[in-house]
Amino acid sequence: MELTPDLLKTNLDTVWVLFTAFLVFFMNAGFALVESGLCRVKNTVNVLAKNYVVFAVSTLAFWLIGFGMMFGNGNPLIGLTGFAPSLINGSTSFSALDWTSVPIAAKFFFQLVFAGTAATIVSGAVAERIKFRAFIIFSVVMIAFLYPVAGHWIWGGGFLATLATPVHDFAGSTVVHSIGGWAALTGAIILGPRLGKFTSRGEPQTIRGHSMTSVTLGGLILWLGWFGFNPGSTMAADGRAIAHIALTTNLAAATGTITSLLASWWLQKKPDLSMIVNGTLAGLVAITAGCDAASMVGAVAIGGIAGVLAVLAVFGLERLRVDDPVGALSVHLVNGVWGTLAVGIFATTEGSVFTGGNGLLYGGGFTLLSSQLLGVLAVGAFVAVASSAAWMLIRATMGLRVSAVEELEGLDVGEHGMPAYVLDSDSPLANDAAASAGMGMPMPAEGAFAEERVLAKKL
Amino acid sequence: MELTPDLLKTNLDTVWVLFTAFLVFFMNAGFALVESGLCRVKNTVNVLAKNYVVFAVSTLAFWLIGFGMMFGNGNPLIGLTGFAPSLINGSTSFSALDWTSVPIAAKFFFQLVFAGTAATIVSGAVAERIKFRAFIIFSVVMIAFLYPVAGHWIWGGGFLATLATPVHDFAGSTVVHSIGGWAALTGAIILGPRLGKFTSRGEPQTIRGHSMTSVTLGGLILWLGWFGFNPGSTMAADGRAIAHIALTTNLAAATGTITSLLASWWLQKKPDLSMIVNGTLAGLVAITAGCDAASMVGAVAIGGIAGVLAVLAVFGLERLRVDDPVGALSVHLVNGVWGTLAVGIFATTEGSVFTGGNGLLYGGGFTLLSSQLLGVLAVGAFVAVASSAAWMLIRATMGLRVSAVEELEGLDVGEHGMPAYVLDSDSPLANDAAASAGMGMPMPAEGAFAEERVLAKKL
Amino acid sequence: MELTPDLLKTNLDTVWVLFTAFLVFFMNAGFALVESGLCRVKNTVNVLAKNYVVFAVSTLAFWLIGFGMMFGNGNPLIGLTGFAPSLINGSTSFSALDWTSVPIAAKFFFQLVFAGTAATIVSGAVAERIKFRAFIIFSVVMIAFLYPVAGHWIWGGGFLATLATPVHDFAGSTVVHSIGGWAALTGAIILGPRLGKFTSRGEPQTIRGHSMTSVTLGGLILWLGWFGFNPGSTMAADGRAIAHIALTTNLAAATGTITSLLASWWLQKKPDLSMIVNGTLAGLVAITAGCDAASMVGAVAIGGIAGVLAVLAVFGLERLRVDDPVGALSVHLVNGVWGTLAVGIFATTEGSVFTGGNGLLYGGGFTLLSSQLLGVLAVGAFVAVASSAAWMLIRATMGLRVSAVEELEGLDVGEHGMPAYVLDSDSPLANDAAASAGMGMPMPAEGAFAEERVLAKKL
Repeated sequence: MELTPDLLKTNLDTVWVLFTAFLVFFMNAGFALVESGLCRVKNTVNVLAKNYVVFAVSTLAFWLIGFGMMFGNGNPLIGLTGFAPSLINGSTSFSALDWTSVPIAAKFFFQLVFAGTAATIVSGAVAERIKFRAFIIFSVVMIAFLYPVAGHWIWGGGFLATLATPVHDFAGSTVVHSIGGWAALTGAIILGPRLGKFTSRGEPQTIRGHSMTSVTLGGLILWLGWFGFNPGSTMAADGRAIAHIALTTNLAAATGTITSLLASWWLQKKPDLSMIVNGTLAGLVAITAGCDAASMVGAVAIGGIAGVLAVLAVFGLERLRVDDPVGALSVHLVNGVWGTLAVGIFATTEGSVFTGGNGLLYGGGFTLLSSQLLGVLAVGAFVAVASSAAWMLIRATMGLRVSAVEELEGLDVGEHGMPAYVLDSDSPLANDAAASAGMGMPMPAEGAFAEERVLAKKL
Repeated sequence: MELTPDLLKTNLDTVWVLFTAFLVFFMNAGFALVESGLCRVKNTVNVLAKNYVVFAVSTLAFWLIGFGMMFGNGNPLIGLTGFAPSLINGSTSFSALDWTSVPIAAKFFFQLVFAGTAATIVSGAVAERIKFRAFIIFSVVMIAFLYPVAGHWIWGGGFLATLATPVHDFAGSTVVHSIGGWAALTGAIILGPRLGKFTSRGEPQTIRGHSMTSVTLGGLILWLGWFGFNPGSTMAADGRAIAHIALTTNLAAATGTITSLLASWWLQKKPDLSMIVNGTLAGLVAITAGCDAASMVGAVAIGGIAGVLAVLAVFGLERLRVDDPVGALSVHLVNGVWGTLAVGIFATTEGSVFTGGNGLLYGGGFTLLSSQLLGVLAVGAFVAVASSAAWMLIRATMGLRVSAVEELEGLDVGEHGMPAYVLDSDSPLANDAAASAGMGMPMPAEGAFAEERVLAKKL
Repeated sequence: MELTPDLLKTNLDTVWVLFTAFLVFFMNAGFALVESGLCRVKNTVNVLAKNYVVFAVSTLAFWLIGFGMMFGNGNPLIGLTGFAPSLINGSTSFSALDWTSVPIAAKFFFQLVFAGTAATIVSGAVAERIKFRAFIIFSVVMIAFLYPVAGHWIWGGGFLATLATPVHDFAGSTVVHSIGGWAALTGAIILGPRLGKFTSRGEPQTIRGHSMTSVTLGGLILWLGWFGFNPGSTMAADGRAIAHIALTTNLAAATGTITSLLASWWLQKKPDLSMIVNGTLAGLVAITAGCDAASMVGAVAIGGIAGVLAVLAVFGLERLRVDDPVGALSVHLVNGVWGTLAVGIFATTEGSVFTGGNGLLYGGGFTLLSSQLLGVLAVGAFVAVASSAAWMLIRATMGLRVSAVEELEGLDVGEHGMPAYVLDSDSPLANDAAASAGMGMPMPAEGAFAEERVLAKKL
């Protein structure tokens, strides 16, 4: 092939798309750490396993069905071509993605890691009480149906993309985060709260997570991953755009961190690190829709408000008796909605790389804001209804929730037959015989390592 | 320098090679976490230290000797030029790498991180009983001699690269993973099993690792790293090729995850997260040789079989009385072999970016499969014999295995004089005096922090 | 826009600058893990929180003030333009950065992540005794004033950049690491040592950290991050330069690892993993100034000396009664100085990509070495004096150090109201009521989970 500028551009764009997709893939580690760190030690293996396996499941479900349903050529409601695509030759099945020149395999891979993120969001809100198999099945439904349909409306050429003023959701405050958030909300409600979360008088009890090291590392990995999520959504190495987006993304994360720190300090008397990490994530979720359209000052405002919202929403959801062990709803749902609306308020074509019109504060009136609101409502209504149906169908068939006994003993033993940590090498837990005899309650292990112990005594 | 398309291409290719090399470098963290997580807490510092130091040792050994022996101009068996290269000017010493236009320093760096991976694989199989210094010395032998010689045969222009139908090992199922795997196998056999792994009647005992958080995070880091390992092996930013390879790599990882999940669920009654993580790695190892040559469907098949093989091999090796604490042999050796042979079965020039002929299932007959088998056997025979000699030489001179007392007390204290965790800030372990007096068995620390304690009581 | 080679180059350069900036950003995770791992479990949340929040604070302080003061057009001492920049249009305020063609937003982002690193370095040396709010305020001073002023002298067109032989500090051994190191030194001295670090007779006591898993993972993340730090400082995708720099960086890290291993083995009888990780970092800090100017052999020498210095400095600082819980001074200050001077000794225009003249060992005499020494002294004098003033001002106003009671009980509870780990799911610590009643000393939690416990007994 001749080395034309066009070929060089395509290759450079592909490098950018893959690099940023790898960062987004790594967000799986961030979610696994934040969520498991915020859950109790007895449910750690289960939370890790859900977050780990869900990307594998998403890969197959999105390849077989989801990608075609989201980006395939179809109608304003759904895509209908390109299922289980071979992804090797130029394809005309995905005209909604024709705007970027990278190979179809790169387009698919980038969209896949986004789909995986949407599925992961659900995991935290239903943690510490959902059956492993029920979560896996829901994830298949999510990636094969819920996410691609609503996603088609905005990113796949559907009806929200073809409005006179189309909904602008650059990297997915609505498409990824609020879709995940709505499904998480219905799941949390239908499952009900964890045992012990509310007293019989309805007073919320704080249930602490087990590792702030996991939470903090996870938060930083997610912050890093967002530098793929937002700047990568250009799907082209346009220097001016990607640098601008990296900056607005980071400014919103920073102000979300600081305002959540201040809000937590004020409301809880001391700055709570788990609130701060969620404040960062809130800022990131909120800037996602408008990272291209906000100015530096706009990003500061969007992120700053998000950090406060994240803290307030934690207490608000507790009042509503919704039990969300990791704050996923405060982060992804509340701020996914806020970020989408914020485009209608803060979009500026002068101080940004956006060309789609100004928001309310920059003289654009309510035009853009109205579209954004319509997008929020349409997607929210669909996902809330469809995900509720899916949860209830699963409950009716295989059951959603583990038994009370298993919940109290922990899902690690109940679902996976193993503890997350064995911090005493001589513990019977280190040995399978003891483990299978009832790992939740350590017991003397008859015969376990008996010979080794005799040797140890001799020495 | 004039800004020609050729210069732009070289610079872009270099960015790609370095970026992917950094991802492969980061696999050191993945291996350190997976292996230490699967070992007992008393050996954690030792496992971490081995995995950490081995890359430093590999860097010097590969720069001084290994790189010249692997890629230097020489004969069909060995390279003989370019030892301790200055790597600053264009060099004619490494004609086997002339196919890529990136600077020689980039070629070296990319190959170095691969060499480091091969050395790391050995670490897990010999864990919890090998002397620290013995492992370091073996790593030098591995990187200066074993890996480069066998690697030269396939990647350095040696006799397996110049067959009528050359062995095709795109990113190293054989060159990296099975070489590491064979050396790990001989090491595990020559060292013998850990105390307590088999009863005197030969019944295997499961010995649990100490942290599933480490294992899961490590698994995700390795999955991420493989996006450098495989797509980076193009050593050029060819958009179509790197996107295809990213996808086949991910599909095989996903199916390996899911089939190992199902196999574990079936055989062990509950889905074991450590099996699942190893299933992912098995899928990744298996697709490594043919990531360019497999179609999407081929990648699904290769990875799916790998996940099952990984689970079965764990139990099979236990039957053979081979003690591999982390499953390194199931992952790297068994699936390194499987992946290399799979090229001969699944290679397709239509559904992939490969041009070297079709495999058995795509009408290519046994031609390619025969070459692949020859490659597996030649490399396996050489590494098994040569590594056995190296292990035995080390055993005869400095000794291979720690004492039984040290093994029972743990290698952290024995080899490094420190515990991995001190989770009680007031523990005597937090203080050196106590530690050096016998850290394995906590004891009252005479005088340790005595003054601080007096102060604490006063307050 | 027409697809010219110039546009392609700018886009490629921007991809490189952002990619490497993301790696440097990720160093925040590395510092958080290394520092918290080397501190006691009772101070873990506090160390994590400091390292986490400091980047958010740095983002705002550097955007509002620091960037303009460092790179704005001004005089030889200070920059005076470009505060709170909009960063969207071409700007003439930052002529010191005109040498790279990437968008101003990319220049800012790259410089921001460097500023964040400088602030993070301080954190470790003042750990386990500084008030959270005092550290945050100092970080603002650091990023808005100390770092940009001294940085302006060398990187912003200040007086050290316009000497006949300018100070050469390619990626910041002085600008980042020794600036951070000097501020850390004055902070550690002014705060005084931790309770229990020295007996009343002045004998140092080793205080162990709480997690070598954190330390090791953090070390590998920092090693990875340095591949952004040094090669990225080209701020252009010049293939020959970035490959060379990646290699010298890695060689110095490897030799720092190995010489610190040997020094620790010799002095402490057993190889101490925390010393080894610090040895790697020492090698990395030392090569940072001259990563472009050293040959392969030079990098080996610079890193090898750094590893020994790091170990010796730990014991030397203890003799001087300076308490540096994580070895930050040995790594960043001692080796920041060594690395800057090493440019004057090892710079070579033949074996490297440097054109600024040879060092002492390559026939350049003392010319370059003298400039380097002047740079070290000028920056050191300014930062030592100015940071001392800042520390003392904070001490006089809000206080620097937590109470002795809080220090003994741990800053996690005292500053943040939460423990880092709850490894027993049924512990009263898992519940807020108990926690707020006095988390440092576990107590029966009246009513905490009372209903859940009743249920558990029934089952």
